[in-house]
Amino acid sequence: MGIVIPLEEKKAAGLDSLLDLIRPDLERTNQLIIQRTGSDVTTIPEVANHLISAGGKRLRPMLVLATAGMCGYKGDGHLKFAAGIEFMHTATLLHDDVVDESNMRRGKIAARMLWGNQTCVLVGDFLLGHAFKMMVEPGMIPPLSVVSQAAAVIAEGEILQLNAAKDTTTTEDAYMGVIRRKTAELFAAAAEVGVMLAGRPKADEAAARSYGMNLGVAFQLIDDALDYGGSSAKLGKNVGDDFREGKITLPVVLAFRRGSEKEREFWRRTLEKGEIADGDVETACGLMKKHKALDDTIERAAHYGAIARDAMEIFPASPWKDALLEVVDFCIERVY
Amino acid sequence: MGIVIPLEEKKAAGLDSLLDLIRPDLERTNQLIIQRTGSDVTTIPEVANHLISAGGKRLRPMLVLATAGMCGYKGDGHLKFAAGIEFMHTATLLHDDVVDESNMRRGKIAARMLWGNQTCVLVGDFLLGHAFKMMVEPGMIPPLSVVSQAAAVIAEGEILQLNAAKDTTTTEDAYMGVIRRKTAELFAAAAEVGVMLAGRPKADEAAARSYGMNLGVAFQLIDDALDYGGSSAKLGKNVGDDFREGKITLPVVLAFRRGSEKEREFWRRTLEKGEIADGDVETACGLMKKHKALDDTIERAAHYGAIARDAMEIFPASPWKDALLEVVDFCIERVY
Repeated sequence: MGIVIPLEEKKAAGLDSLLDLIRPDLERTNQLIIQRTGSDVTTIPEVANHLISAGGKRLRPMLVLATAGMCGYKGDGHLKFAAGIEFMHTATLLHDDVVDESNMRRGKIAARMLWGNQTCVLVGDFLLGHAFKMMVEPGMIPPLSVVSQAAAVIAEGEILQLNAAKDTTTTEDAYMGVIRRKTAELFAAAAEVGVMLAGRPKADEAAARSYGMNLGVAFQLIDDALDYGGSSAKLGKNVGDDFREGKITLPVVLAFRRGSEKEREFWRRTLEKGEIADGDVETACGLMKKHKALDDTIERAAHYGAIARDAMEIFPASPWKDALLEVVDFCIERVY
Repeated sequence: MGIVIPLEEKKAAGLDSLLDLIRPDLERTNQLIIQRTGSDVTTIPEVANHLISAGGKRLRPMLVLATAGMCGYKGDGHLKFAAGIEFMHTATLLHDDVVDESNMRRGKIAARMLWGNQTCVLVGDFLLGHAFKMMVEPGMIPPLSVVSQAAAVIAEGEILQLNAAKDTTTTEDAYMGVIRRKTAELFAAAAEVGVMLAGRPKADEAAARSYGMNLGVAFQLIDDALDYGGSSAKLGKNVGDDFREGKITLPVVLAFRRGSEKEREFWRRTLEKGEIADGDVETACGLMKKHKALDDTIERAAHYGAIARDAMEIFPASPWKDALLEVVDFCIERVY
């Protein structure tokens, strides 16, 4: 006889441990971000703040601050890189909205709908210029190589995506090539730069880079799954945005390949031809469920998450390391 | 009695003396440009080469090579900055075409008409990323500050121009604020960077910067005058492009201010409302002539050209210095 004692429920992973460690630095980074969007040309702070204050999670700057902190960096160059990388990210979002002809972004009306495509292109350029200006200030060449390489690679990824747009026969490998460049490269750069600033050996830089790269891939895959309702495939706010824009993401790649000819015809009509009728979003979600496309996208994400965690193992135990490992869990668990 | 002996006609200023001095460096820069537009993503070299090989004068890279040469620079970092600055310029042109909705560029069909706005935005971003990647390679921080500052300032100038677009009441001062940022800043950076690489004193950097800034302003003003046929106000190929796009340039600012109320109505109808009828380009050119708007734009250009020349005076006599002074004459004399 005996009583069944429930196992203590595992606390959901979050960003709190990390936030506790980096809070003062993150606040200084935010101040820097606000300062550096200032311009006599008032359109610039208006547009930039629309996006920057729209409640992004600041994941990329957090990675810079966290890896720098973990490696005992003492200067304040990490603030410049954290803010600069957020600027690079924001510039990408502005240009993305123009390229994707999106109407919404982060649950708010897209900047291009308020200020026009022209202003968004130019404010993106302004932020990119200021990103570099800020990151040059600490006077360290190696992290500058990393971020400028990232800028070129991200654009390459966006062009690849544009070329593959609406192509339902895209392979999983080709899709991975796109998201490594367009999303994961900046996560990789963010994590690597923090370690570089602290002047740690190459092996540590490579570990942080691998962590960031795989975390970025996992993050994007979960985003893709969330766009079709996540693991529950429940229809909520913003579900089906990718679908309506004809975006080919991993859930589509899997559902298309696993589908019947009739189902493939559905994907071609909706995503390639853009002919979307009432009920098509529901049908798409149904097909995802039928073929376990979301479950398997999440499983793939977990695979990359595991690689990210292993990459971190060479760092000695510390609250910083634990917090960075928890970021991986957070990025994946948000799907449930 | 006697024979009238004609004064020896002054040889027209050209870029030949400069080209003779920098030819090997310019060839290496061109090779670097072609190399660095390479990408597995084949759209990128296609679009980039469409513009880069369209026969730009390579004035900006020439300034880098020339000021570095004049100051006795011995490394090869100047090639990276020359190519990087040409990439920055090309990225600006690509984004400009999108922003201006232009159909033509450098006498060729605009890239956006062939590949679409989306690709042009992204290839511009790719070039900007690679520009920085290349310029980071020599490992020198101070010239990186200059070029990243320039990137931000150029975008600011473009936004200012967009805000002032179609406003016929733009003042000459406001217009100067736009062209200093959008055009002259990159000339200034190009000239300054060459001197910086050679490790010369601040006064020499400032002199080269002032030369480049004023040369850039003169260059843009002559471009503006050429768009209405230059000093002869003769209608030729591409005359009236700015007019048809509703661009406010110095000739317009002067003709509008000096014009009668009826004439101002003409400028408002054509440039602000964009209602352009047959014969309007001719009328515009006629008004320019009547009010000496082109002559005075050229005179203003000559004024800035004179400042550029004086800025150079602190450098000791050399064939390099002479060639750089001749660039000023070339930029102005091409109007005749």
